[in-house]
Amino acid sequence: MKFNPDEIKEATKGDFDAAWNEGKKYVPNPGINEKYPRISLKYGKPHPVFDTIQKLREAYMRMGFEEFMNPIIVEDRDIHKQFGYEALAVLDRCFYIGGLPRPNVGISDERIIQIKNILGDIGDEGVEKIRLILHSYKKGEIEGDDLVPEMASGLKVADSKVAIMIDHVFPEFKSLVPVSSQNTLRSHMTSGWFISLGEMCEYRKVPLRLFSVDRGFRREQAEDATRLMAYYSASCVIMDENVSVEDGKAVAAGLLSQFGFSNFTFRPDEKRSKYYVPDTQTEVFAYHPKLVGSKTKYKDGWVEVATFGIYSPSALSQYNIPYPVMNLGMGVERLAMIL
Amino acid sequence: MKFNPDEIKEATKGDFDAAWNEGKKYVPNPGINEKYPRISLKYGKPHPVFDTIQKLREAYMRMGFEEFMNPIIVEDRDIHKQFGYEALAVLDRCFYIGGLPRPNVGISDERIIQIKNILGDIGDEGVEKIRLILHSYKKGEIEGDDLVPEMASGLKVADSKVAIMIDHVFPEFKSLVPVSSQNTLRSHMTSGWFISLGEMCEYRKVPLRLFSVDRGFRREQAEDATRLMAYYSASCVIMDENVSVEDGKAVAAGLLSQFGFSNFTFRPDEKRSKYYVPDTQTEVFAYHPKLVGSKTKYKDGWVEVATFGIYSPSALSQYNIPYPVMNLGMGVERLAMIL
Amino acid sequence: MKFNPDEIKEATKGDFDAAWNEGKKYVPNPGINEKYPRISLKYGKPHPVFDTIQKLREAYMRMGFEEFMNPIIVEDRDIHKQFGYEALAVLDRCFYIGGLPRPNVGISDERIIQIKNILGDIGDEGVEKIRLILHSYKKGEIEGDDLVPEMASGLKVADSKVAIMIDHVFPEFKSLVPVSSQNTLRSHMTSGWFISLGEMCEYRKVPLRLFSVDRGFRREQAEDATRLMAYYSASCVIMDENVSVEDGKAVAAGLLSQFGFSNFTFRPDEKRSKYYVPDTQTEVFAYHPKLVGSKTKYKDGWVEVATFGIYSPSALSQYNIPYPVMNLGMGVERLAMIL
Amino acid sequence: MKFNPDEIKEATKGDFDAAWNEGKKYVPNPGINEKYPRISLKYGKPHPVFDTIQKLREAYMRMGFEEFMNPIIVEDRDIHKQFGYEALAVLDRCFYIGGLPRPNVGISDERIIQIKNILGDIGDEGVEKIRLILHSYKKGEIEGDDLVPEMASGLKVADSKVAIMIDHVFPEFKSLVPVSSQNTLRSHMTSGWFISLGEMCEYRKVPLRLFSVDRGFRREQAEDATRLMAYYSASCVIMDENVSVEDGKAVAAGLLSQFGFSNFTFRPDEKRSKYYVPDTQTEVFAYHPKLVGSKTKYKDGWVEVATFGIYSPSALSQYNIPYPVMNLGMGVERLAMIL
Repeated sequence: MKFNPDEIKEATKGDFDAAWNEGKKYVPNPGINEKYPRISLKYGKPHPVFDTIQKLREAYMRMGFEEFMNPIIVEDRDIHKQFGYEALAVLDRCFYIGGLPRPNVGISDERIIQIKNILGDIGDEGVEKIRLILHSYKKGEIEGDDLVPEMASGLKVADSKVAIMIDHVFPEFKSLVPVSSQNTLRSHMTSGWFISLGEMCEYRKVPLRLFSVDRGFRREQAEDATRLMAYYSASCVIMDENVSVEDGKAVAAGLLSQFGFSNFTFRPDEKRSKYYVPDTQTEVFAYHPKLVGSKTKYKDGWVEVATFGIYSPSALSQYNIPYPVMNLGMGVERLAMIL
Repeated sequence: MKFNPDEIKEATKGDFDAAWNEGKKYVPNPGINEKYPRISLKYGKPHPVFDTIQKLREAYMRMGFEEFMNPIIVEDRDIHKQFGYEALAVLDRCFYIGGLPRPNVGISDERIIQIKNILGDIGDEGVEKIRLILHSYKKGEIEGDDLVPEMASGLKVADSKVAIMIDHVFPEFKSLVPVSSQNTLRSHMTSGWFISLGEMCEYRKVPLRLFSVDRGFRREQAEDATRLMAYYSASCVIMDENVSVEDGKAVAAGLLSQFGFSNFTFRPDEKRSKYYVPDTQTEVFAYHPKLVGSKTKYKDGWVEVATFGIYSPSALSQYNIPYPVMNLGMGVERLAMIL
Repeated sequence: MKFNPDEIKEATKGDFDAAWNEGKKYVPNPGINEKYPRISLKYGKPHPVFDTIQKLREAYMRMGFEEFMNPIIVEDRDIHKQFGYEALAVLDRCFYIGGLPRPNVGISDERIIQIKNILGDIGDEGVEKIRLILHSYKKGEIEGDDLVPEMASGLKVADSKVAIMIDHVFPEFKSLVPVSSQNTLRSHMTSGWFISLGEMCEYRKVPLRLFSVDRGFRREQAEDATRLMAYYSASCVIMDENVSVEDGKAVAAGLLSQFGFSNFTFRPDEKRSKYYVPDTQTEVFAYHPKLVGSKTKYKDGWVEVATFGIYSPSALSQYNIPYPVMNLGMGVERLAMIL
Repeated sequence: MKFNPDEIKEATKGDFDAAWNEGKKYVPNPGINEKYPRISLKYGKPHPVFDTIQKLREAYMRMGFEEFMNPIIVEDRDIHKQFGYEALAVLDRCFYIGGLPRPNVGISDERIIQIKNILGDIGDEGVEKIRLILHSYKKGEIEGDDLVPEMASGLKVADSKVAIMIDHVFPEFKSLVPVSSQNTLRSHMTSGWFISLGEMCEYRKVPLRLFSVDRGFRREQAEDATRLMAYYSASCVIMDENVSVEDGKAVAAGLLSQFGFSNFTFRPDEKRSKYYVPDTQTEVFAYHPKLVGSKTKYKDGWVEVATFGIYSPSALSQYNIPYPVMNLGMGVERLAMIL
């Protein structure tokens, strides 16, 4: 409650303790519904995955890495360049992207009658307008968003009537079937790194230390907690004259130490991807004190958190890259669950 | 250069100025190649878009919003639910996703000869193994990644030979054509919000204040600086019994003030999307002192930066959502360019 | 090792597996001293206290609070205004600040001889210059830093000689004893808040929600881990017509929830500071799952982390503040140790 | 306003456009006082200085530096060790800290009468209790905060009466004059670095790259915008066998580039502090495009922002440090004003 400082100053000068005790009357005693925890203070909350992404970005930058944005849409022939005869298997797990074709529609006499039934008598030039607009649309001169408004404004009829007319008269639109292109969504960050490094090695000097924490997409039969169709990868590369698996170990330890991991072991990966030099693909196991005694399968404190390897000159050469490249990647969702 | 503190302490006690001057000899004078700017200090660098994303996340959280991750893959029937008769136009701009089918291959006698030519005499049971593995693959019991290794280990021949064999004997694999599903990549965050809010309104209480700064995908004819196929949107919703365009204005001002914008005007959007209540779709123009005098078309300081509106009960009802929802979105790349 | 992409491309086309295996030769096998963990990647590391400060700043801002910088130097009469008859006890724990006085020195004939012995014959006008400079220094017209350079340049002798001369001839400088002023270093943030709020209530409207995470100083007999002479406090105030202890509870819960605390209890503080309304001073106990089973005295998971109360109108009135004020504070070092 | 999704779903199925238009009635049209800008969204706001501090912390960490907290209270003999004959001038600008002494008070017969007049007849043992408590207080066994409560509880009288009694009977308390110690508040970060590095060189290996963004205190005649008694310094050190001014240049450029500065020049500082090796003290001038055309004295874009140098072996030896040390410092408030 607002009070009068002058009065209270006076009272305090007179009898400090009495005035002090009087202070209570300016503090309301809220009813039950205005009491904690019925009242609470809302605060902005981060999502754990995006929170982990931000921590990973900071951790990479604190190791001196530069952030990069890689292409997310990759042609299937890039997969062939990167994976050789493994490409088929990889593409089996990739999403291809495509879209709706634009139909080639004709306006028969019968259809003209149907159109006029719905829109009213729009005359021959009205029909001609529709024909021209459909033609422009087919050729890509008119965007999908603009088809209905364009007709409506050309014919001076309501949007909704045009929409109904197209719906009834041109069933071709409803029966459109999407068609795939040769483009895929990157299934892992490596597909993007090859393209980016191939371009960069023309204008940037080695050593290059780059990172990206961004999405990958995997076509899966079923999506569950450990298998996400859209997932986040925290990936980095070091391109330099001399890079070796030791760089991978040092990056893994430097990165993971920043998240409280305190011990690391490295095991050769049984999977020997063709885009890595043989015997360089390495799994990173790390120890986190917080996991000890947890009700997970990591209760001894150890968990597999990352993989690294040296990109194969066979794959690098397809992009005219003349330097070996260390690549390390880790799943963000997994890290978010551990932390 | 390392030095002996005891000696120098002694010398300093004797003749401070002389000892002080002597200090120079412990500081090397590097050769030209060890001099700045030939030597420099590498530091971690953020990418401007991801940097802006992080600033937007903070700005939303400082307004008390909670971060949410929306579905990135959306069925096309959701677009129909959200847009009504506009859906067709919207879907024209969406990417559909699909993938490679798995071929149904037979093993003729002629093919058996070819196989043995490449792999050596693997016997009848070898051929039978191939048949079984191809069958399991077709049924989805074997992952694409595992097809070659599975055969190689079953037949005890090298991976590469199996790969060559498949390449030569089963051209069906090479001629696979990807097939689209009915799933699309969200073209704007709204497609995701409807799905998420529809689920949340069962277990969360209003008011809900959520945000997401994440990707959208637009199928475009050509990709250039202002039109990106994959772009970032900073989107938020307020779901509450009483929300109005005034909430949109307040959110826009609160959010943009944090980026140095200092003045705001609001104009009804000419585009009247069907997922917004008529006449609520509003364009946000903001003034940034930094733009004044810049060599851009915004040199008067004003720029269009965001759009908001109230989701239509018609669309909300499709998801059994009983409350109006204010939605505001802005393009991240555009903001990154301005800042 | 750098390689020739064209050659490798050719080799890969010829025999993929052979070329792939050859890739190994471009990856160095470092000697023992270039191996992990002898090589490691340095990364920027935050100090735990400053890291916690930053997290507290974010947490306050995500509750919508505005950051403020309070005066760190506070006159002792402010302590009297705030604490009434408790002031004496409080000031006993405060650092007073002071400094060296500037001596009033005379130049006797004997000293003139000493000066000339050291500096050489600087003549009468040299002596006069010294006299004038000493006088200006005394009056505060010359800064301490400039005393020696000023004389050296005026007399055209080396800095070091002047320094030696002052040292030998004017022992008054060496025997200077610092003198305290009536200014103190704030012993807790409250001393600053009263001053700041007193000024702000003239030009800012209620409600005001402000925070500051900054230093306080306490004069202690001994400094150890739990008692720091210089420590950090994370403090906030809400000034509004109606504030009560419920606001304190809501702020405590909102703030601490962001650090993983999940349960809260509140107990009236036995200490009844005069700057709080009687019976509003409250201790905050919070439960953190991470503490459970820890080798600390908090192994049941509960720890006292904060204190809040409503500033007394008696104290507020001294600063002409007409609104009650909720104040909450917590020690940063303690929180840093828990996290 | 809440609505019934089932009803609206039905209506939408019947006549999409009509139902869509009806949507308006669920969106309130707020009265003038609920309209923007009368309503606004509060958001958490950082203070520009603390915001700049955080950016500087990040910038240092992104160059791989480790954060450190240096002593803020420094004995005056450390200044002598660091500055040699310059110490006097430096100490003239330092705050000394001190505190109130504890009075040695006697209880005369006259005072006993006064005491009983105020407190009532407390008997001989009451007087003895007072005597003992005052004695314990003098010896430091009782904290200042506890003097009044201790007496009150010992004598079973009200706090306030005890306070009045002390006030009337023991004027010694009121006439206490603070006494300075030989401790000072660090006037710049260097005073702290010498102490810290002296300790660290025993247990840490070179190279060491440390930073601290923290307070310094300067005793000034008058405090204004450019001269603050309490200010923030962003300081760093590199301790290594070979460090030179080139390291200072590289650090300056790396740090400032992160704030948008794009060009750097370096000038020998006219001030030649004794804690730096002669001729290594260097002023950093930097160019910021944002300053160009500004209404400041930096309208050509150039501003002096930092100073660096190599610590003198003469000063380092006083702390038994055997390596040269590059030190760079810049004022935070100045940077905050520029940004």
